[in-house]
Amino acid sequence: MKITVIGAGSTYTPELMEGLLQRAEQMQIKEVWLYDINQRRLEIVGGLIQRMNQAQGEPFAVHATLERRAAIAGADFVLTQIRVGGQQARHDDTIFSLGHDMIGQETTGPAGFAKAMRTIPVILDICSEIRASAPNAWLLNFTNPAGIMTEAVLRHGGVNVIGLCNGPLGMQMNIAQQYGVGHRDVDLDYMGLNHLGFVRRIWVKGEEVTQGVLETMAAKAANIPDLEVDAAFAQSLNMIPSGYLRYFFLEAEMLKVLKAKPKTRAQEVMAIEETLLRKYADPDLKEKPPELEKRGGAYYSTAAVELMQSLHSNGGEKHIVNVRNQGTITDLPYDAAVEVTAIVDGRGAQPLALGPLPTAIRGLVQQVKAYEELTVEAAVTGSYAKALLALSNNPLVPSVNRGKLLLDQFNEHHQLGLR
Amino acid sequence: MKITVIGAGSTYTPELMEGLLQRAEQMQIKEVWLYDINQRRLEIVGGLIQRMNQAQGEPFAVHATLERRAAIAGADFVLTQIRVGGQQARHDDTIFSLGHDMIGQETTGPAGFAKAMRTIPVILDICSEIRASAPNAWLLNFTNPAGIMTEAVLRHGGVNVIGLCNGPLGMQMNIAQQYGVGHRDVDLDYMGLNHLGFVRRIWVKGEEVTQGVLETMAAKAANIPDLEVDAAFAQSLNMIPSGYLRYFFLEAEMLKVLKAKPKTRAQEVMAIEETLLRKYADPDLKEKPPELEKRGGAYYSTAAVELMQSLHSNGGEKHIVNVRNQGTITDLPYDAAVEVTAIVDGRGAQPLALGPLPTAIRGLVQQVKAYEELTVEAAVTGSYAKALLALSNNPLVPSVNRGKLLLDQFNEHHQLGLR
Amino acid sequence: MKITVIGAGSTYTPELMEGLLQRAEQMQIKEVWLYDINQRRLEIVGGLIQRMNQAQGEPFAVHATLERRAAIAGADFVLTQIRVGGQQARHDDTIFSLGHDMIGQETTGPAGFAKAMRTIPVILDICSEIRASAPNAWLLNFTNPAGIMTEAVLRHGGVNVIGLCNGPLGMQMNIAQQYGVGHRDVDLDYMGLNHLGFVRRIWVKGEEVTQGVLETMAAKAANIPDLEVDAAFAQSLNMIPSGYLRYFFLEAEMLKVLKAKPKTRAQEVMAIEETLLRKYADPDLKEKPPELEKRGGAYYSTAAVELMQSLHSNGGEKHIVNVRNQGTITDLPYDAAVEVTAIVDGRGAQPLALGPLPTAIRGLVQQVKAYEELTVEAAVTGSYAKALLALSNNPLVPSVNRGKLLLDQFNEHHQLGLR
Amino acid sequence: MKITVIGAGSTYTPELMEGLLQRAEQMQIKEVWLYDINQRRLEIVGGLIQRMNQAQGEPFAVHATLERRAAIAGADFVLTQIRVGGQQARHDDTIFSLGHDMIGQETTGPAGFAKAMRTIPVILDICSEIRASAPNAWLLNFTNPAGIMTEAVLRHGGVNVIGLCNGPLGMQMNIAQQYGVGHRDVDLDYMGLNHLGFVRRIWVKGEEVTQGVLETMAAKAANIPDLEVDAAFAQSLNMIPSGYLRYFFLEAEMLKVLKAKPKTRAQEVMAIEETLLRKYADPDLKEKPPELEKRGGAYYSTAAVELMQSLHSNGGEKHIVNVRNQGTITDLPYDAAVEVTAIVDGRGAQPLALGPLPTAIRGLVQQVKAYEELTVEAAVTGSYAKALLALSNNPLVPSVNRGKLLLDQFNEHHQLGLR
Repeated sequence: MKITVIGAGSTYTPELMEGLLQRAEQMQIKEVWLYDINQRRLEIVGGLIQRMNQAQGEPFAVHATLERRAAIAGADFVLTQIRVGGQQARHDDTIFSLGHDMIGQETTGPAGFAKAMRTIPVILDICSEIRASAPNAWLLNFTNPAGIMTEAVLRHGGVNVIGLCNGPLGMQMNIAQQYGVGHRDVDLDYMGLNHLGFVRRIWVKGEEVTQGVLETMAAKAANIPDLEVDAAFAQSLNMIPSGYLRYFFLEAEMLKVLKAKPKTRAQEVMAIEETLLRKYADPDLKEKPPELEKRGGAYYSTAAVELMQSLHSNGGEKHIVNVRNQGTITDLPYDAAVEVTAIVDGRGAQPLALGPLPTAIRGLVQQVKAYEELTVEAAVTGSYAKALLALSNNPLVPSVNRGKLLLDQFNEHHQLGLR
Repeated sequence: MKITVIGAGSTYTPELMEGLLQRAEQMQIKEVWLYDINQRRLEIVGGLIQRMNQAQGEPFAVHATLERRAAIAGADFVLTQIRVGGQQARHDDTIFSLGHDMIGQETTGPAGFAKAMRTIPVILDICSEIRASAPNAWLLNFTNPAGIMTEAVLRHGGVNVIGLCNGPLGMQMNIAQQYGVGHRDVDLDYMGLNHLGFVRRIWVKGEEVTQGVLETMAAKAANIPDLEVDAAFAQSLNMIPSGYLRYFFLEAEMLKVLKAKPKTRAQEVMAIEETLLRKYADPDLKEKPPELEKRGGAYYSTAAVELMQSLHSNGGEKHIVNVRNQGTITDLPYDAAVEVTAIVDGRGAQPLALGPLPTAIRGLVQQVKAYEELTVEAAVTGSYAKALLALSNNPLVPSVNRGKLLLDQFNEHHQLGLR
Repeated sequence: MKITVIGAGSTYTPELMEGLLQRAEQMQIKEVWLYDINQRRLEIVGGLIQRMNQAQGEPFAVHATLERRAAIAGADFVLTQIRVGGQQARHDDTIFSLGHDMIGQETTGPAGFAKAMRTIPVILDICSEIRASAPNAWLLNFTNPAGIMTEAVLRHGGVNVIGLCNGPLGMQMNIAQQYGVGHRDVDLDYMGLNHLGFVRRIWVKGEEVTQGVLETMAAKAANIPDLEVDAAFAQSLNMIPSGYLRYFFLEAEMLKVLKAKPKTRAQEVMAIEETLLRKYADPDLKEKPPELEKRGGAYYSTAAVELMQSLHSNGGEKHIVNVRNQGTITDLPYDAAVEVTAIVDGRGAQPLALGPLPTAIRGLVQQVKAYEELTVEAAVTGSYAKALLALSNNPLVPSVNRGKLLLDQFNEHHQLGLR
Repeated sequence: MKITVIGAGSTYTPELMEGLLQRAEQMQIKEVWLYDINQRRLEIVGGLIQRMNQAQGEPFAVHATLERRAAIAGADFVLTQIRVGGQQARHDDTIFSLGHDMIGQETTGPAGFAKAMRTIPVILDICSEIRASAPNAWLLNFTNPAGIMTEAVLRHGGVNVIGLCNGPLGMQMNIAQQYGVGHRDVDLDYMGLNHLGFVRRIWVKGEEVTQGVLETMAAKAANIPDLEVDAAFAQSLNMIPSGYLRYFFLEAEMLKVLKAKPKTRAQEVMAIEETLLRKYADPDLKEKPPELEKRGGAYYSTAAVELMQSLHSNGGEKHIVNVRNQGTITDLPYDAAVEVTAIVDGRGAQPLALGPLPTAIRGLVQQVKAYEELTVEAAVTGSYAKALLALSNNPLVPSVNRGKLLLDQFNEHHQLGLR
């Protein structure tokens, strides 16, 4: 088995490597290929990965390369964890957005739109490489905005794809801790889009615990975790929303908070990454350093490795992933990418029937799905008109005219070439 | 034929009367009943209506009454044009909304939500009267928010209902003027919800003129009429939106404008109405005074009377009205109220198949429809939780927590009794 | 205005001509082109048409030609009334079907399947001519099986098309007679497919008369006209079915009747046509002879001419026609051809929303629609496998294996070239 | 854990008991209650079950009773395997059907209709008992026609229900044998209705083997097993149909075969059952006798016990069962019972998204589903009109009038009380 990591210079890669090493034998991993376009990062991160591998007795071969074809050819799994433009672009997108009194939010907000516009062409180019040299491979995409990336690949990529996010697994882990069980014992009726997911019902070892979880959350500081919305609203909702919902539910408050911050998250991450890369460069370091936790992305490795294992071993486990809707959520388009519970085995990821969205969340999810569709169309066609429609459909853009000013800035600064 | 006007004390009533007089014979009108709960207004407006009738040789009998049952019993048409709480409530709703940095907007905004919550119980009570004493009558509803009212009656009223707005007719009239034809020669592919409608294509006497209309509009001050959105966006949209869309497309700008106004629209209307009522009280006045035009509501009478005539005469004309969706717009719920073109004849209003909403507007229309559904549910159940969900789903509410503060104000001030 | 008749050698053409002459001025007809591949018939029928035109003072020019391009170029309306293989093929199809103990039925049965397989390629070839030389023309198709032809053109023809049948108009005419009104005063809630239509409700001048019509029909010989099904079933159905439904509702009985007939309908028609053609050839005949009535096809001319006039004059009248479903019947595919009431004006034919099929007829209509879809696919691809699936899906085929024997006969005899 | 068997006097019960004994410990079975209305059968079969239990060291308590309430109260699982009217009614239904030249077929044919009409009231009465005295129990229904029973319970029963058939498991077992694997290693894309199921794709241990299975089947006597349809059709279908499809695909041939048989299947079964009951009555018999195999129903015990175990242990295994559609098959009604692959755990059975039916089978499945819906409606309302519509919608009824004669016979003979 050959696993390829695209964007392997990411500081997350040692986290992933740790997971691969743990399951090397079980999954019969033979080769891991690390690919990046950034030579310095590839050398530093790749060096650490090599040392981690050696420290475990080299269960498989590790190759680091700047040549994409070699990295992809014949792969069984291609993991994409790229960031086109790097943290600097993220920083710029945030600053531009705040400059027009809008939250940037690099996944679900205007900054996420800019990121998608930069990234979709790159992902689709990777897809053409996969079609040519590894047509049976699974593309496992972690690149944000993960829902839009999955939609783009489903509609235009022509490869086997599953979009993955660590968020839903984090929700399972939290509940698992609360009930003192493993995360595989927690079953969520999860429905929505990436970073726009809602848990309708919860079972622990087959027993429904929905009301218990909702009450515990209400009790804990009278809010749902990390989202300081009013407790009455949380109760009305009668579902557990993804933490990212705070940008929509508390848009006004979040905008104030973000404008008041001295640094953008991108700037913080740049600092963290420099520290991490310095650590990684230490030839004595042979394992994932504890500082990596600050970087975020908890459970990223677990999510990725467990997913690969289900696919490889025909396991049939449930995973919450981004896949084609195909009727699972009855009031979203049949071909849309949705984030739902799916059974994953040798066939891929088959979603479970969920029915209609509760009215309480239906409108928001449908609105964001329309925005996502338009964004993919804009990126694929290079149409300025489509891009303007897309950005105007984002719920965080409170004015078409301001949205247009922001779009013009994105277009010029990132040379998107929209016309 | 008996026509009943509920809320006949409205200053609009003379406008309506003018239309009825013009078609009295054609429509075989026998009786017009004027009902209101406000005695002073009923006397003043009713007096003018009586004099208008006499001046035309009394083609039918006019009755003014404070007794609802007598007014409704045996009616063929019941027109509802009520305003629960009057302009004062409208003013309060606007001020409350602005106080939380939100546009009030008494039809599509938070103020419209408050108005709906006050009005739905009254409309449903009128429906129970119609079921009891005029079960074959057509309820023609003009009361705003007209889309929500129609949805409430369709789901809970148990009577024949068509919701009507003068807006779409205004769009037809504008285009008719531009092309020098009658408004019946202008055919619109109109789809959406009340005050959230979009014209996809336009025909004049069977010839498509869509691009011509779009270009003329773009040329005229580089914008679509009354909506100073960027011309590039208008072109991207490739549809003509209802003027009310400005509140969603230019939310941020409109909020500034409204906060800067010295008076609310309600206060302006109160002044206009006092002037009008003084005029109406003049025993020498025997016709609609020209000052009524300032009140707005152009074409209201034309819309109402032409609709009644199509129903009465089995005419089969096209009207843009609020009716049950029943598959006409394929990505809105089957039972939702939508504003679309329908064929109106003795059977009622049967909508024409339209297919899916263009992606450019799909999300917004779906979001607002979810808000409308939740609002009806909140009003019918008296549930605080549903009301909070409803208001939070309104696109003009940028924060659930602020929405809750506003809801509490509405609940207390208007004694909505939500729990 | 130029009208082109494809298959003008049909003995029906004088019927059509009569209608055109009546409306020549109103519709501003300038040219009528008659095209056929059969020179003898074209000369005979064309001769009569010319004489009919002259007798009325030549309101328009009549051209008869064997050159298709000349006939079609620049046409406003192209009427197709062709019969590929002629009555002989019809006769053969019937005999083959009866030979395997199946009803042939040249529209909805196995013989209709064979006719569709022969005709679809010809119709699509005519479409390519229209695209090339009369791209704005309306193709009005009368060729049977009319529903399948419309489906083929909608999916593969790329031209404006409306499928037309005289059957629904006949139902309106019957009810109009019963109530002493004109057929335009009869409004039918008509839903289904061609020769598989059902009337759910009936209005005469805006008053519902459904129960009255059902009862009159039940009373008249305790059956629905021409369909000697049990009265209890007719009542259970609570709808008026097209007369062709007898082949499905009384399959066993009809098979016996047809097997017992000494001649096929095709043979009868051949005899009638020879008589008619002899009549037509008489240089003194200048009008439609009364014998034409025996040929069937009542109201064919009325249906065609009224439809052209609605399209031409932007009339907005209701017509029951074959058009793309587009959500009108919610449990049939969006792109399927259906036979429903549509508003016809300069834009074309826009169907009215009907909702779901009553459960009583849902299964049969869905079954036949699947058969129709498969038939179009078989004809377009030339696939034997698809053809076998199509024929096996026809409700009149009681065994896949017998269906295959029949298919092989069709394939060989008509040189369908299926592989 | 308490398991209740309704209709425990069935000769199948020892088969079921064998499975329960094998998993007694694993499933923590405490009590098994046997209920029947036939005292003789209950004594004989119950006696054998008791001896089987004792021979295995009495892992749980066995109770045999004629009192339904005692049997059901507090049960965790209620298995229904009843036959209202017994084999005699089955025999009569078959003879009546053949008398009108129709296949009876006690599951999918007219005899199945009669059986459903007799059985639905009894099943719904059992449901009311479950609601009253074991509201959390799972009703596992084996009673035929299993799809119609499930639809009836889903719509009118108000209890947790899963419909089960041994057929799909049999298909898995066959393929498992062919590939030398366990049946849990065979994964089927199974879609349709009970006894009207189709396998679209097949995986063995995660590898797709669809074409291999299809070819093996074609090779084996150039037919699909047990269904002597033409090999070309089997290939065209490109799916593996349930064996019961022969009644639809080869209706004409099967009718001949059945009419030629000297005895009905019911008569054969009566003889087998008498032999079995004599065996069962032998006080020395302490295990399932080998003669039981002749009775049919292979894998019945495996299907039942594995399903109970998945529910009990929160296992999450795939089972092919009858459940509410809820969007799984997009062109069947949302609330219809369908037979599909579902994940079964403590929550119940959640179906996997399948999308649209292939056109090749869509019409037939939709037709039969309409028949099933109408049958449930007829049984619940006691309406003669609905019953006539239902029976006329069955594809094996070639004439409404003959169907009516048959219905009248059923109604009188079984005292169905239809009006």
